[in-house]
Amino acid sequence: MSARPSPPRRGDFRYFQTIATRWMDNDIYGHVNNVVYYSYFDTVIARYLMEEGGLDPWRGEVVGFAVESGCRYFRPLAFPDPVVAGLRVARLGNSSVTYEIGIFRGGEEEARAAGRFVHVFVDRRSERPVSLPAPLRRALARLLVGEAADGGER
Amino acid sequence: MSARPSPPRRGDFRYFQTIATRWMDNDIYGHVNNVVYYSYFDTVIARYLMEEGGLDPWRGEVVGFAVESGCRYFRPLAFPDPVVAGLRVARLGNSSVTYEIGIFRGGEEEARAAGRFVHVFVDRRSERPVSLPAPLRRALARLLVGEAADGGER
Amino acid sequence: MSARPSPPRRGDFRYFQTIATRWMDNDIYGHVNNVVYYSYFDTVIARYLMEEGGLDPWRGEVVGFAVESGCRYFRPLAFPDPVVAGLRVARLGNSSVTYEIGIFRGGEEEARAAGRFVHVFVDRRSERPVSLPAPLRRALARLLVGEAADGGER
Amino acid sequence: MSARPSPPRRGDFRYFQTIATRWMDNDIYGHVNNVVYYSYFDTVIARYLMEEGGLDPWRGEVVGFAVESGCRYFRPLAFPDPVVAGLRVARLGNSSVTYEIGIFRGGEEEARAAGRFVHVFVDRRSERPVSLPAPLRRALARLLVGEAADGGER
Repeated sequence: MSARPSPPRRGDFRYFQTIATRWMDNDIYGHVNNVVYYSYFDTVIARYLMEEGGLDPWRGEVVGFAVESGCRYFRPLAFPDPVVAGLRVARLGNSSVTYEIGIFRGGEEEARAAGRFVHVFVDRRSERPVSLPAPLRRALARLLVGEAADGGER
Repeated sequence: MSARPSPPRRGDFRYFQTIATRWMDNDIYGHVNNVVYYSYFDTVIARYLMEEGGLDPWRGEVVGFAVESGCRYFRPLAFPDPVVAGLRVARLGNSSVTYEIGIFRGGEEEARAAGRFVHVFVDRRSERPVSLPAPLRRALARLLVGEAADGGER
Repeated sequence: MSARPSPPRRGDFRYFQTIATRWMDNDIYGHVNNVVYYSYFDTVIARYLMEEGGLDPWRGEVVGFAVESGCRYFRPLAFPDPVVAGLRVARLGNSSVTYEIGIFRGGEEEARAAGRFVHVFVDRRSERPVSLPAPLRRALARLLVGEAADGGER
Repeated sequence: MSARPSPPRRGDFRYFQTIATRWMDNDIYGHVNNVVYYSYFDTVIARYLMEEGGLDPWRGEVVGFAVESGCRYFRPLAFPDPVVAGLRVARLGNSSVTYEIGIFRGGEEEARAAGRFVHVFVDRRSERPVSLPAPLRRALARLLVGEAADGGER
């Protein structure tokens, strides 16, 4: 907490997706509720995995299980703000991936929130970890950011 | 139930808005859950009221209360389908409005779901019905569809 | 709209379930958002079907598809209100069921909202309607309310 | 990541609340979606603050803003599992609080997920940090766990 990191910027991410806020995203204080950011995170990740990495959540043999997630909230958002989610890969293991996500308001340079999400890929039936299938690994490697690969603590 | 109506079509609506589906919209059957359609309905309505009708949900004196809603589901949707919501006004009363909504998959002509939603506008503090403010009424009148004004039973 | 029906009462329902409200159920106006009521509806229905009717949403051959839903909102709720959902069956067809739901605040006699929900049961693979399996039919028949069986139009 | 911590246990928490899972909490894989855990976190926190600490989210001068949150997922949950959320305070500052949350399935001893959440309390209008009001501080101090006060890395 002491040394609060500064918000990430657009240039820190490799893939972007527009996410429309919804009326019910706003909570009683008139801001997007803290929970909802995580639905932005898993939306940008899932869509990338499905469209670029060949993940098929309906019939595929490999599925991604969340093992860890986190978020720092820098400045609030509110419906009907347009939101852009930026994605990068901070660590690419044999069966696990650590993503980092930036949540931007419209065209802003500085993220309103910074997310972190760790997937372990498992066999759908046994639920045991498996090596990442090659198409998935190739797609994720394209988002890998060198400096972030050591990960730090976060 | 006996005479199930057919799905509405694009031309039946007057205002359109794109709504990005989210990973968690999908339920255990791999389709957008029935509940989530209603979040599409109140999103397209709220954004129209805010951007075109001058509604200010943070500070405005007039707020819209839901008194009735409904949906017919014709064909399923699934994340990451792109969704377009069409909106029209079927009835415009002194303090209440009946909206009809069509939920389309991408550019399709026929709606996947048809919604209905009734707002009563009330004073924020007293929560008593008020006449629609003029800018709001004008915005809603632009979406009024004559033939639908009688409404039928639905 | 003209002849707005009065709220249903506890005695109108046959099965009850407690549903904890959540912080994010509240919207910007400090009330449970209109969308969220539908998550109460499908929760009370799903749990009854799973615990009393033998429905297995993970592996069962028969799944329930929503074809229609609706809600009348009489008085608002707000987190952290305790909520009780009452359930009855208004119509039991060969492959479809019409449920009616009352949403009560704590021990109140009069419902805050009245829901309606229609399921068609289909084969998981073909997605074609099937006759209700016997255990499911028996469980639903126990909630059937004679007078409501004609249903009216709503 | 290397030294994955073990799940917390019941005895690690000071306050407990039952949270009913909902049908739509389950995602396409038949488990409670990773996002939904955060709605359990802010529900147990908000209810404690409102019922024990005098927080009034409708009219109070002091509101809690989320500045950071995180979760480790140990074993999945699924609707209709009964869920119990345990709460403790790991750090109590002048205007900020760090909570830790354990999510348990029914009466189990070991948590299925471990959450962390940081609130900064601000003035509703200026949105500037304020000292915790005395009743709130007293309520939170009752949940403070000495050993956890240093925080560990997380």
